[in-house]
Amino acid sequence: MNYLILVRHGQSRWNLENRFTGWVDVPLSEKGIKEAMDCAVELENVEIDVAFTSKLIRAQETLFLILAKQKKSGIFLHESTKRKEWSLHPVRFEDNEIPVFSSDALNERFYGDLQGQNKQEARETFGEEQVFIWRRSYDIRPPGGESLKDTYERTIPYFIEAIIPQLENGKNVIVSAHGNSLRSVIKYIENISDEDIPKLELETGKPVFYSFNNGKFVKDK
Amino acid sequence: MNYLILVRHGQSRWNLENRFTGWVDVPLSEKGIKEAMDCAVELENVEIDVAFTSKLIRAQETLFLILAKQKKSGIFLHESTKRKEWSLHPVRFEDNEIPVFSSDALNERFYGDLQGQNKQEARETFGEEQVFIWRRSYDIRPPGGESLKDTYERTIPYFIEAIIPQLENGKNVIVSAHGNSLRSVIKYIENISDEDIPKLELETGKPVFYSFNNGKFVKDK
Repeated sequence: MNYLILVRHGQSRWNLENRFTGWVDVPLSEKGIKEAMDCAVELENVEIDVAFTSKLIRAQETLFLILAKQKKSGIFLHESTKRKEWSLHPVRFEDNEIPVFSSDALNERFYGDLQGQNKQEARETFGEEQVFIWRRSYDIRPPGGESLKDTYERTIPYFIEAIIPQLENGKNVIVSAHGNSLRSVIKYIENISDEDIPKLELETGKPVFYSFNNGKFVKDK
Repeated sequence: MNYLILVRHGQSRWNLENRFTGWVDVPLSEKGIKEAMDCAVELENVEIDVAFTSKLIRAQETLFLILAKQKKSGIFLHESTKRKEWSLHPVRFEDNEIPVFSSDALNERFYGDLQGQNKQEARETFGEEQVFIWRRSYDIRPPGGESLKDTYERTIPYFIEAIIPQLENGKNVIVSAHGNSLRSVIKYIENISDEDIPKLELETGKPVFYSFNNGKFVKDK
């Protein structure tokens, strides 16, 4: 039996300011760094074999603070932008090194025109009810942005194609990502309804564990 | 008068193991995180207006630990890989936010076939003298890799086109990067000879300051 660990990144500077962040690439706040380090202490003795994260720095920072505490090195397996050569030279992994896959499939919900707006400003611009609907509906898009359903539809194919095979292969997997990409994963695993999933709140920096056995996920309480 | 601050990232897991890292994307070690945080304390009250970093996580982590200590948010101004829209919606910067530009022009020297090898293994494979020549010559390339001259020739056009205009515009600039991309910048600024530059050692996590005045750099002792 192996397990899947989901971690929502620690507080970012924009979470602190209550702004819609989406794909704007904002780092952890000091509090977020502390949350990630507390999470690292909690996970210090948990064996991790492979990691997945988004293309956004707040999720990557959270992951690497966790791995550093384990004295592990997570090495990105991404192609460098101009040099293709080294992707042809696979890295030789030492015992204390694990592969890290980074994909925008795990990015936060893309909030379109709301990105950068304070939630209060957004309410003033678009009306309180409309902002509530965007935040708490499953399939309604803000202007230029994704609904939670859109996020689900890019996250879950990646989860099925890239992450589940690692679990089937007996690996212990960590996913360091975002509120809405993780909501999508949890909706899929736990078969949560379209109505209920927008209400699910994940705490920042608090790992959620699932054991994986014969293709079934069981949440660890 | 404004200034340029150069920071070499804290110790990575592979610096610790004495392996050639190059473009392999390895995070900071625990010691490297501590070095970056010590550097953050040293820079806590230094005004920074704009930041530059590489595409490699160890330099980005170092930068964001420094900015978090200042209670600043460095927001990447890169295009997201699939969504072009938000690059058309420039982020509105608050007082505590600064733009961060990330480029592979600032990446570490690309070490080709040496990447991933322990320095001792490399000596056994290629001979001690050859490895010494690769590490300490200016223009000799290891197989599949860059000479320091190659690194210089991609770093300095970016320095001239992207970084100097910010300094000319009166901005205080930080560059969080790597041993060899920073050697290149220092060679350019201080006009150091091809023979001497490979010997220049930069300490990890120790900021180097230059004041910038009328197009001239003066190193702060």
